[in-house]
Amino acid sequence: MRFQPCEAAFEVRRKDVLGRIGYLKTPRTRVETPALLPVVNPSKPVLTPKEMEEEYGVRALITNAYIVRKYFGQEAAEKGIHKFLGFGGLVATDSGAYQALRYGGIDARQEEILDFQEAIHPDVGVILDVPTGSEADEVHARFTVEETIRRADEAVKLRRKKDILWVGPIQGGTHLDLLAFSAREMSRRPYPILALGSPTAVMERYRYKTLVDMIATAKMNVPPSRPLHLFGAGHPSMLSFAVALGCDLFDSAAYALFAYEGRYMTEEGTFKLENMEYLPCGCPTCRKSTAGEMKSLGPGERARRLASHNLWATLSEVEKIKQAICEGRLWELLERRARAHPALLEAFRAFGKYSKFIERHSPSDKPRGIFYYGPESLARPEICRFRKRLERCLAGIAGSGAVLLVAQPWGQPPEEFAERAKEAAEKRLPGRKKALTLAFVPPLGAVPMELLDAYPAGKITAPQELDEETVEDAVKYSLGILGKIGCKVVAVSDGSPQAEKILGIGSWPGEKLTANLFKEGIGGDGIIRSREQEKRNPN
Amino acid sequence: MRFQPCEAAFEVRRKDVLGRIGYLKTPRTRVETPALLPVVNPSKPVLTPKEMEEEYGVRALITNAYIVRKYFGQEAAEKGIHKFLGFGGLVATDSGAYQALRYGGIDARQEEILDFQEAIHPDVGVILDVPTGSEADEVHARFTVEETIRRADEAVKLRRKKDILWVGPIQGGTHLDLLAFSAREMSRRPYPILALGSPTAVMERYRYKTLVDMIATAKMNVPPSRPLHLFGAGHPSMLSFAVALGCDLFDSAAYALFAYEGRYMTEEGTFKLENMEYLPCGCPTCRKSTAGEMKSLGPGERARRLASHNLWATLSEVEKIKQAICEGRLWELLERRARAHPALLEAFRAFGKYSKFIERHSPSDKPRGIFYYGPESLARPEICRFRKRLERCLAGIAGSGAVLLVAQPWGQPPEEFAERAKEAAEKRLPGRKKALTLAFVPPLGAVPMELLDAYPAGKITAPQELDEETVEDAVKYSLGILGKIGCKVVAVSDGSPQAEKILGIGSWPGEKLTANLFKEGIGGDGIIRSREQEKRNPN
Repeated sequence: MRFQPCEAAFEVRRKDVLGRIGYLKTPRTRVETPALLPVVNPSKPVLTPKEMEEEYGVRALITNAYIVRKYFGQEAAEKGIHKFLGFGGLVATDSGAYQALRYGGIDARQEEILDFQEAIHPDVGVILDVPTGSEADEVHARFTVEETIRRADEAVKLRRKKDILWVGPIQGGTHLDLLAFSAREMSRRPYPILALGSPTAVMERYRYKTLVDMIATAKMNVPPSRPLHLFGAGHPSMLSFAVALGCDLFDSAAYALFAYEGRYMTEEGTFKLENMEYLPCGCPTCRKSTAGEMKSLGPGERARRLASHNLWATLSEVEKIKQAICEGRLWELLERRARAHPALLEAFRAFGKYSKFIERHSPSDKPRGIFYYGPESLARPEICRFRKRLERCLAGIAGSGAVLLVAQPWGQPPEEFAERAKEAAEKRLPGRKKALTLAFVPPLGAVPMELLDAYPAGKITAPQELDEETVEDAVKYSLGILGKIGCKVVAVSDGSPQAEKILGIGSWPGEKLTANLFKEGIGGDGIIRSREQEKRNPN
Repeated sequence: MRFQPCEAAFEVRRKDVLGRIGYLKTPRTRVETPALLPVVNPSKPVLTPKEMEEEYGVRALITNAYIVRKYFGQEAAEKGIHKFLGFGGLVATDSGAYQALRYGGIDARQEEILDFQEAIHPDVGVILDVPTGSEADEVHARFTVEETIRRADEAVKLRRKKDILWVGPIQGGTHLDLLAFSAREMSRRPYPILALGSPTAVMERYRYKTLVDMIATAKMNVPPSRPLHLFGAGHPSMLSFAVALGCDLFDSAAYALFAYEGRYMTEEGTFKLENMEYLPCGCPTCRKSTAGEMKSLGPGERARRLASHNLWATLSEVEKIKQAICEGRLWELLERRARAHPALLEAFRAFGKYSKFIERHSPSDKPRGIFYYGPESLARPEICRFRKRLERCLAGIAGSGAVLLVAQPWGQPPEEFAERAKEAAEKRLPGRKKALTLAFVPPLGAVPMELLDAYPAGKITAPQELDEETVEDAVKYSLGILGKIGCKVVAVSDGSPQAEKILGIGSWPGEKLTANLFKEGIGGDGIIRSREQEKRNPN
């Protein structure tokens, strides 16, 4: 089967890490992404679509075609879904596949669900896929992947209306090889939106690290020109991670489900209303109330107020993420969100596995400097990119001349000392006048003196004392690349304990290199001494 | 001079770390703390006191007696400050001392300023102290401390009205010994509120680490029964740190000053409005507007809107801090706020210096478990307290019997393996039947098996893989205490790489201990083998 391309529905405007601000265009409307589509239960909406549009500024929502068909089939088909819901923005309809996973098989075939979706005419529709879930063994997972692809092919033949954007679901769940296969196959088919299924159960168990693997695997196997939807994810504390890995669309009923359970969502975690004495939020709902008042309400009104707050908290987080992308500070946002729960820190650390992929697809023109906090940030695209380029540059001088490696405490301008060290080194080693001088600047590692002012070396703000893991990583990395080029390396320290420690650690993991790396100290007189000399003549 | 005590004005209701929720009681009113008093400029209030009270729920504010006297002297004295401002809550008046520091000497003597404050009759007044500033050398700093104490004594004699709570300023700035002296001296005098001066310039330069030293030094030298005010501090990103170190009251004009400079405050840092494309906030002001609209306003209205948002952001952060104290999750909030800027992470790490003091004054009945993120959390009072108690308990068995130290990877229930290891050890070492069994559980270190389920060991949620600094700290700490008790230590690992690494690191720093610490492996048959045996017979 040959498929025509279908990538015109999405336009990317800004990027940071793998996160993007873009537009999803449908024949009826245009929605900015990343966007979270609140799930509206047509039987008992805790907040009405009209309220969402007028008071919350919601531009896109999702409802369930299966439930609409079951309870309001004729009315919805007559009015069309927009009029039926009373909502002017983008309406997406889900197929009921998730209900089938969660509550057992549903009593409708794909053809019926697709016909009904075409009848009510949403902007975005979903085929009746087979979600893998998080507990499936490999055999069942393979079945869900293959059956979903079969249905996707069937749907291509069944569908008639040209102005509905159809979503192609990616299944496989936690079976990453199957997920990759599913993503590649679905990408070959004419689905202008791709969607990753089955994350809900994974998230309910705080397996955010697994979620990172799932999203990254999907992302590596879909074309960047198509928007990626993450089904059923909408807690504000995890949205930034999914966006940073390249998800553009979300749908979630969490704002309402959490509300019914008396839970108050924030981007920093969830509170139980019963434990709250304060409402730590400036949203219109919290402003009008106190925790005591909210607790004393009847269950219906309490759920309504909580749902209202939860939706505000979720929408505000989307705005925070977009602003962070604009400022090139999305990674910094992750640093903060990673401390909403230890499982999120674990997930953030898992970004390290994908740092090369992230680097390749991250923008290289950063508007501003970076904040460095600790080892998690070593996977930042800016650091990976710098190191990649340095390796290429050093490969050019491999085997020729010498390298002068200068170490001094972090936080002081390295140029001055490096200049002095270079001069002294040249005096003592006149044959090496053309030595390349590298300053040891963690977290980057060895940095050519000429690049100390440039981006990113000159634009990193970090704590004065860096953590040990960062320093060790920088040493290990630097020894690795210096070992490769095979030049003679002269390491010079300013004699400060921190610099000495750096060079001390330096000789530690690299047995092969230590022979190559002889250490010398620079005295107050600017003369370089080898360590042996120094011992004999401490002044 | 003998002073009468004056501690009845403050009542502490809840505590976490050194942070407290309490009530400041005045004859007129009662205000919950921690409280941030917005500074109102009586000449040109960007938001009026009436608005603050009615729309923002502000219960306490501060204005400047020196400026009120200069421009509205008679009117204010006739009406009284509450009526003059149109504000029913607590009104505090500052003396103009800060103006003197910032803009040169002011043209009024203390007697005049005190008389005027008594005439306008605020709830809280401040004497005319001499701020040290952040640039003062030791000689000048000593002068400011001594002159402030002299004026405090003078004020005690001058004041007449019994229903004004007077604030006793603590000076000394970054000279910590002088600051400690100042705090002790001021505590001896009848000032129901103590206030730490001179942090503004320190904060403007992002020297938050220095601010931690200043607050901790003050706190260690004032009675816990009196509220501590931090002068001129009000950025939402740093408030949680000051509260966690024991500050109860704040006053700040930052919401307005930042607004005039086009700056948008959040608890996660400051944005320049000109760089903003989104308003990442659900407050009533941001909800009614977009970034584009706000940028297009005239300077007056723009400043007003920004000040409104800034005040909302600041007040919401105070609520977040209070809720965190109620839940016993203030430390977790610091973990997040420490990633708003690397200088705040530096400040957070500086808490480690004061961990013993913090532990002594933190509540010991925690309502819930703790989230562990990394080495910064080693200074948590719960961890320090556990270790302190363990040391006392082990001192009791010093020199008698043997200790079995069991290591296995973090994240698995240690009881089962420990039970098996104990049994096996007893078989092989029948003389040591009564050996105390300790499981190695970082971040705590060695934990008696009986306490594995108890608080805090059973209540720590941490990433599955702990960072190296944490594991090394736990090993170092455990070797230290095991070394002290002088028992024979039998270390047993489950053979997993992580456990082996733990014991590997264990033998590394403690030369004196290695002789005492012989390592044995436990085989699949549950039989303990010494390492030598294992080499000979790998099965």
